[in-house]
Amino acid sequence: MNPGGRNQKLAVVVFCLATLVVLSARTTLAQTSEPLPSWNSGSARNAIVEFVHATTDASSSQFVPPAERIATFDQDGTLWTEHPMYAQLVYCLSRVPAVVAAKPELKGVEPFKTVMSGDPTALAALSMKDWETILAATLTGITTDQFKIDVNAWLADAKDPKWKRPYTELTFVPMQELLRYLRDNGYKTYIVTGGGQDFVRVYAEKTYGIPPEQVVGTVGGTTYGYDENGKPILTKEPKLLLNDDHAGKPEGIHMMIGRRPYAAFGNSLGDKQMLEYTKAGEGARLAMLVLHDDAAREYAYGPAKGLPDTKFGTFPQDYYDFAIKNGWVVISMKNDWKRVFAFEK
Amino acid sequence: MNPGGRNQKLAVVVFCLATLVVLSARTTLAQTSEPLPSWNSGSARNAIVEFVHATTDASSSQFVPPAERIATFDQDGTLWTEHPMYAQLVYCLSRVPAVVAAKPELKGVEPFKTVMSGDPTALAALSMKDWETILAATLTGITTDQFKIDVNAWLADAKDPKWKRPYTELTFVPMQELLRYLRDNGYKTYIVTGGGQDFVRVYAEKTYGIPPEQVVGTVGGTTYGYDENGKPILTKEPKLLLNDDHAGKPEGIHMMIGRRPYAAFGNSLGDKQMLEYTKAGEGARLAMLVLHDDAAREYAYGPAKGLPDTKFGTFPQDYYDFAIKNGWVVISMKNDWKRVFAFEK
Repeated sequence: MNPGGRNQKLAVVVFCLATLVVLSARTTLAQTSEPLPSWNSGSARNAIVEFVHATTDASSSQFVPPAERIATFDQDGTLWTEHPMYAQLVYCLSRVPAVVAAKPELKGVEPFKTVMSGDPTALAALSMKDWETILAATLTGITTDQFKIDVNAWLADAKDPKWKRPYTELTFVPMQELLRYLRDNGYKTYIVTGGGQDFVRVYAEKTYGIPPEQVVGTVGGTTYGYDENGKPILTKEPKLLLNDDHAGKPEGIHMMIGRRPYAAFGNSLGDKQMLEYTKAGEGARLAMLVLHDDAAREYAYGPAKGLPDTKFGTFPQDYYDFAIKNGWVVISMKNDWKRVFAFEK
Repeated sequence: MNPGGRNQKLAVVVFCLATLVVLSARTTLAQTSEPLPSWNSGSARNAIVEFVHATTDASSSQFVPPAERIATFDQDGTLWTEHPMYAQLVYCLSRVPAVVAAKPELKGVEPFKTVMSGDPTALAALSMKDWETILAATLTGITTDQFKIDVNAWLADAKDPKWKRPYTELTFVPMQELLRYLRDNGYKTYIVTGGGQDFVRVYAEKTYGIPPEQVVGTVGGTTYGYDENGKPILTKEPKLLLNDDHAGKPEGIHMMIGRRPYAAFGNSLGDKQMLEYTKAGEGARLAMLVLHDDAAREYAYGPAKGLPDTKFGTFPQDYYDFAIKNGWVVISMKNDWKRVFAFEK
């Protein structure tokens, strides 16, 4: 007998056993660790878990091949806080002084005059047309590279008015868990937002693990050209290609993804068509809406269920009734979530 | 000694050994099988292999994290044959009888009259404006679902005029190998085509392993609405959102992907800005152009290198010189490819 050969065989067996132990430990972990730990037991959590089982169990009649597993998420109000005002609008207001400094002729012109005054009452009274002027002035006329630098600089400094924290900390822990749970089960997770696609892409990867190519948002045109050194640049133009809200959401999904989602998540009337389009597909489809009914931990607004009627993220009672009637699931922030933010005690 | 226990242990060891054999066989295969077997040795093949090593070897100064590995491919003339006419134009012509049957008032109207006549000389003389009219009439005004059915039905029947084979068989084997080689090395492969995004998406997954969400093309608007049963539908509109050719290619890449590619492949003047934009990024970037110089196995056209000057896929001499000067690599179909089509003897 050759002792060297024996040792070699022993080494192989030990290696194999070690591999087996690692493999079975991983299997056990995947099978036993409970998903969605920040969700209370109940119909919302159950709906998610049942949907995932139905669409990923190969023996299920509703099994969905991995390539077709698409889940879409609204952002403002669904993945993070949208009150008292969308973060992107705060960003645009913050850019006005720089825009006015570059073009002093705008100083005495509305709505820039009002924004420069900083008067909260006048700011709250800005019309939709005023906002369009502010957005065009602060989001376009610059290169895509410079825009990214500007947004990153703002994100590093800006704090929300309630918790005095960076906006990227205002994401909902249960929704972060849901994103991961779906991805762990082979779903490709997309953001489908009324917000600017370029704006959300700056932080989506770091904040949600969602890469730029999986962010669908309101799209403005760009123009390809060259800088003074002949280097190719893309300049953001004040030309709206897609308003990714309401009917624009399924239109944007078709344009950017080209497949109907199996699951869609939103929180306001602007998400209705996306959820409706999702549910209209065959097989198991999941449509869920976050109801902000938690004034203590976040904000409370509807006006569904007698909640206050506010400006951002409207959720009317007839929308609530429509959702229930159509088999959509409404998530009560107050009752379904153990925790809202990671920074909570 | 418990014979049952012994058998169990034996089974574990046998299972482990079998696992090991499979694992080591796979490792060996991955390490020793040569990539790109249909490419001749030479500067084109070398450029690809060197680029992949430089960007995927973790010890390389030009290493690219997997999430950023984006490669974009023009389609017509780069991945498959574009002569004597783009396949999509043949599709549009084939749809004219159905459009005229549905709207008999078009029968005597140009350019429909010419198309219905089938006269090759008159067809060849159609102007760009005529084509726009034909494209709008045959690609819009129907639901996205119906469009997919129509294109699939056409693909199943249509044969190209030279080899009398389905268009999806006219893909270039070396480019298919290149797609796989890049994907095997963590690259996400995209089509970036001047062709219709919805058209190419119908067959891209089956033909190239490229899913719909990785097809960027010329984009027309859709309108969300409901059919007579109240089911949500998307209708294709004659509204151009993105002309994904020339400067539209980097604009489309920004819109649909949001990252600059590390590698880009084209064959005509319409790919110039995409390759230029790609090469302008930092680190190792690969830009390649297929030159159709193989009249025997496919087609020959330039007019670079004295090749015939034809209508589709123009590759002028000054473009060739510009490419070489800027470190792009020109692929000679005749010299760099052992095989063009899978159906070749």
